[in-house]
Amino acid sequence: MSQALQQNPSITMVRHADFLATAEALKPQLHRAMLQPRQQVIALPDVEAIHGWRAEDSGTLEEFYGRELNSGDSVILDFGTHCVGHLSLRCHAVGSPPDAPAHIRLTFGETLSEVTEPFSEYEGWLCRSWLQQHDEFIDLLPATLELSRRYCLRYLKIEVVAVSRKYRLCVDNVTLTTVSSAPAECLRCHSADPLLRQIDAVSVLTLRNCMQDVFEDGPKRDRRLWLGDLRLQALVNDVTFARHDLVRRCLYLFAGNTREDGMLSANIFVQPEVIADDTFLFDYALFFIDVLFNYLSSTGDKQTAQELWPTAWRQVELALERCDTSGIVRDDETWWSFIDWHDELNKQAASQGVLIFCLERALSLAKDYDVSKAALLTKTLERLKAEAYRAFWDETCGFYVSGAHRQISCASQVWLVLADVGSAEQQRQIMKRLLAQPPEIGMNTPYLRHHFIAALLKTGLQQQAVAEIKAYWGAMVKHGADTFWELYDPQRPEYSPYGSKIINSYCHAWSCTPAWFIRQYGL
Amino acid sequence: MSQALQQNPSITMVRHADFLATAEALKPQLHRAMLQPRQQVIALPDVEAIHGWRAEDSGTLEEFYGRELNSGDSVILDFGTHCVGHLSLRCHAVGSPPDAPAHIRLTFGETLSEVTEPFSEYEGWLCRSWLQQHDEFIDLLPATLELSRRYCLRYLKIEVVAVSRKYRLCVDNVTLTTVSSAPAECLRCHSADPLLRQIDAVSVLTLRNCMQDVFEDGPKRDRRLWLGDLRLQALVNDVTFARHDLVRRCLYLFAGNTREDGMLSANIFVQPEVIADDTFLFDYALFFIDVLFNYLSSTGDKQTAQELWPTAWRQVELALERCDTSGIVRDDETWWSFIDWHDELNKQAASQGVLIFCLERALSLAKDYDVSKAALLTKTLERLKAEAYRAFWDETCGFYVSGAHRQISCASQVWLVLADVGSAEQQRQIMKRLLAQPPEIGMNTPYLRHHFIAALLKTGLQQQAVAEIKAYWGAMVKHGADTFWELYDPQRPEYSPYGSKIINSYCHAWSCTPAWFIRQYGL
Repeated sequence: MSQALQQNPSITMVRHADFLATAEALKPQLHRAMLQPRQQVIALPDVEAIHGWRAEDSGTLEEFYGRELNSGDSVILDFGTHCVGHLSLRCHAVGSPPDAPAHIRLTFGETLSEVTEPFSEYEGWLCRSWLQQHDEFIDLLPATLELSRRYCLRYLKIEVVAVSRKYRLCVDNVTLTTVSSAPAECLRCHSADPLLRQIDAVSVLTLRNCMQDVFEDGPKRDRRLWLGDLRLQALVNDVTFARHDLVRRCLYLFAGNTREDGMLSANIFVQPEVIADDTFLFDYALFFIDVLFNYLSSTGDKQTAQELWPTAWRQVELALERCDTSGIVRDDETWWSFIDWHDELNKQAASQGVLIFCLERALSLAKDYDVSKAALLTKTLERLKAEAYRAFWDETCGFYVSGAHRQISCASQVWLVLADVGSAEQQRQIMKRLLAQPPEIGMNTPYLRHHFIAALLKTGLQQQAVAEIKAYWGAMVKHGADTFWELYDPQRPEYSPYGSKIINSYCHAWSCTPAWFIRQYGL
Repeated sequence: MSQALQQNPSITMVRHADFLATAEALKPQLHRAMLQPRQQVIALPDVEAIHGWRAEDSGTLEEFYGRELNSGDSVILDFGTHCVGHLSLRCHAVGSPPDAPAHIRLTFGETLSEVTEPFSEYEGWLCRSWLQQHDEFIDLLPATLELSRRYCLRYLKIEVVAVSRKYRLCVDNVTLTTVSSAPAECLRCHSADPLLRQIDAVSVLTLRNCMQDVFEDGPKRDRRLWLGDLRLQALVNDVTFARHDLVRRCLYLFAGNTREDGMLSANIFVQPEVIADDTFLFDYALFFIDVLFNYLSSTGDKQTAQELWPTAWRQVELALERCDTSGIVRDDETWWSFIDWHDELNKQAASQGVLIFCLERALSLAKDYDVSKAALLTKTLERLKAEAYRAFWDETCGFYVSGAHRQISCASQVWLVLADVGSAEQQRQIMKRLLAQPPEIGMNTPYLRHHFIAALLKTGLQQQAVAEIKAYWGAMVKHGADTFWELYDPQRPEYSPYGSKIINSYCHAWSCTPAWFIRQYGL
C-alpha cells in the first residue's frame, strides 16, 4: 500500500486567481469553546476492548490538580469526548525554588492506544510525525503553556520527564479551546430508533470536528481537503449544519488549481497558501461534478454552477479519454483510482461505475448550463452502460467482474448498481447476493460501506440497509466511538492500511454519512 | 554527592523591598550579535581526544544548506566557538507539497559528547532537563523557527526525525543571536607569554558568556547567581569589562532576600521574580563581605558599602555563632560549607580559613563604616587564628589537618594560608610541600584551584603559580576549550560530581580567574 503514494513533483499546475479569490472570501470564522478534562483514567489491558485497552476511572480532575508530580510520574486525562483544538495548561512548583527546568511530555490520543503504546514502537509506513506529541522544557515556574499546534484527542497524557529533586510539579487549568466552523447545534434528527439516533449523533460530531477552515478528511490526519471526502461531507452537511458556503469554498479551492490539462487534484493544501497536491485520482476528479450538482440542488446557486461548469466538464472529457474505443475505462497497475483502501482490489469495473454515475450528474447540469453537451452525454452514457454490462457482467456467478483476471469484489457490484447498470431487478438481486454470499474481496473502509448502503437503499433494500448501518457503525458506537473512524473491519479490529492502528484517524469524514441516510431516508 | 542538595522549603525568608528596587534598576541591557555556524563536522571516536571524540570537518555550511534531508538524516554544525543565545533557522520542503508535518530535533552541545552520546543514556543524578534539546513538529512549510529558550553551545545537531516520503527537508539561515551583558571588547591583556595570553582570552570569553542578567555560574547550568561564583567573577570583571554596576546589582539581589535570621542564601533566582534559594552555605554567606570589600575598593562607592554593611556584619555574627567556645568552627556531616565538590573532603579547617579571611575584610570595612565593631573584630581575629593554628596544625606531617579524623587535604592548607594562619615562612613551606607531596584529598574543581593559585602567589611562589595555571587551565586550552570548564581533573578527564560528563558545565564562572591572576600580578 505504501507504493500507493503518487509523486509527480514536476507537474505544472495552473492557478485560477479569480476562483481562489472567491474561495478566500468564503473562509469561515471558527466557533470556539473551552473544554476541561472530565476525569483521570488508567488504561487496563482488556482483550474484550477495542484495540486491547479499557479506560477505568482513576480519580477526579481536582485530585490530579492537587497531586505533586515527581520525575517519571504521569497521568491520562479523559476529556469525555473527541475534540479538536488548542491546549493550554498551567504548571507550578511545590517545594524548594525550582533549580532546574521542568521537562514535560504531552501525548494526545483519539484513542487510549495512542497514549498507552509508546510511539517509539511505531513501525507503520505513514509518516510518524502524525503521532501527536509535544515536549516542553519549562525554565520559569509558574508557567502557563499555550501550545500553538492544533491537536485532536479524547485522551491527554501528561508525563513529567524530569524535575529536580528539590521540587515537585503541579499541573492545573488544563483547557482545550475547541475549534470548528460548524456551530455546536444543528438540525434535529427525527429517527424513532434509539440506536440510529446514537449513530446520528456520532456522525454529526464526526462531521463537526472535521469542519474547520475547509472540510478536512480527518482533524488528526491528514487535516486536508480531499475531493472524495468532501463529497460525502457535503451530503451530511446538507441535512445537519447546512453550511453551504463551506462547500462552495471547497469547490472553488479545487477549481482554483488544476493540472495543465485541467484535471483536478485529489486533494488541496490550504496553508501556508493554496496548493493542489500532485496526487490525481480518476474517481475523485469526477466527483467534482457530483459535489457541484448536489450543491446546486441544495442551494439553487446558479451563478456558482455556471462558473464551475467548465471545470466539471473538463473532468468528463479527461475521464472519457481514459476509455478504450469500446467505452471501457482502461485498467492500470498504479494507484490511479481510489474506490477503497484495498491492496488486492481491481478497480476497473468500479471506476466504470463512478464514471457513469458522474456522467449522469453532468447530464443534469448540462441540460441547464450547457445544453449543447446534453445530446452527446446522453449518447455516451447509453454506450458506457451497455459496454459496462457487456464487459463486466458474469451470468454464471451473478456478479460483475473486474479486470483481466475477472475479479469479483463488493466494490464492483456497488458501483455498477449505483451507476444503474443492468435492470432494476438485477441490481436488487446483486445486492441480495452480496449480503448472502459476500465475495472474498470485501470492503475495507467506511467510505466503500457508504456506497454499499447507498446501493442497498437504491435497490429498495431499506431494512437491510438499516441492519447494515447498525451492524457496522453501531458496532463502532458499542466500542465507545465518539466519532466514526477512518478504518473499521469488524473481523480485524487492528486493521490499518498504514501498518499501525495508532496512525489511523479516528474521526474521519468519510465515515460520517449514516446521519445523511437516517435523515434523508427518514430511517 | 546527590545527598548534598539542601531542602529547606519551610524556611521563612524576609524581602527587603528597597534593596530589590535598587537591584531592579540596575538590570543590564544585553548586547546582541548574529552568529552563523562555521561549518559541518562529524564526531569521530578518538581515545586521544578529551571525552573520546574528535571533530572533523565534513563540509561547508553552504553544502549543508543545499542538502535535501530525509527521515533519519542529521548534521552537526560547529559555530566555531562557545556561544550563548537564541537560535533561529528556516526550513523548506523540496519535492511534492508536504503532506505530513516535519519533525525535527535540535540538540545543543557545549561539547561534542553532548551531540554525540544519546541523552537517553544519561544516568547522572542532576536533573536531566538541563540537557539541551528541542523537538519541533512543523505543520506548515516553509517555516522560520525562532526558539524561545536560550541555549548554550558550540555544536548544534539537527536531526530530521520524520518527514513523509513525498518530500525532503532543507534547512538554512541557521543563526544564533548571542547575548551578554558584557560588550564584545574589554581591557587589553599585556602578558608577554603567548600561552598566558591564550588562557586569558579563554578566561575572558568564559566570563563574558556568564555575564547575563546577572553573573551566572554557567550559562548552560545552573544559569544562576551563586555567591561563590560571583566573588570570582567580580575579580575578573574588575580587570576586564569593569561592569561594576552588575556587581552592585548582584550584591543588592543577595541582600534583598535573607533568611529570617539574616543569613544570605547561597544563590538567587531572578526570574520570574527574585527568590533566594533555600540553600545556605557557611563559606558562601561569608563571601558577601569579600565581594562588598572588593567592590568598594574598585569603585569607591561608599553609599553602597554603607547600605550593605549591616547585611555583611550579620554574616559575621552568624558565622561566629557557629564557633565553639574556643573559636573553632563546628564541623558537620551535612553539606554545610562548599569549599570544593568532594565527597571525602572534611571542610572544618578550610571553613575556619574562610571565616578568618572574611573577618579580615570585615575589619577593613568596619574601620570606615562601623568603627565600633573594629576592636571586637581585631580581638576575635587574633583568637580565631591562634585557635586555628592550635587545633589544625600537625607538626609531624607539616600540614594542617581537619575534622575528628585529622584529614590532610589541599583545601585545608590553601584556606589556612589564605587566612594567614602560621608564619609567612611556614605558609611558604606548606605550599611547597603541597606541590611536592600532594595529599590524597586533592582538588576537584577549578574553584578550589583558584584559591590554590592565590595561595601560591600570596606566599611568593609566582613561578610555581604560573606553572600551575599553565598546567591546569593551559591543558584545557590544549584540549580545545573555548571557555573554561566547571570541572576538570587532568587525571580523570571524564570526572563529574554529578555522575555524567554531559551534564557538566563547560563555560563556568568559577573557572575564569586566570585572567585576573595574569592581569593583576602582571604574569
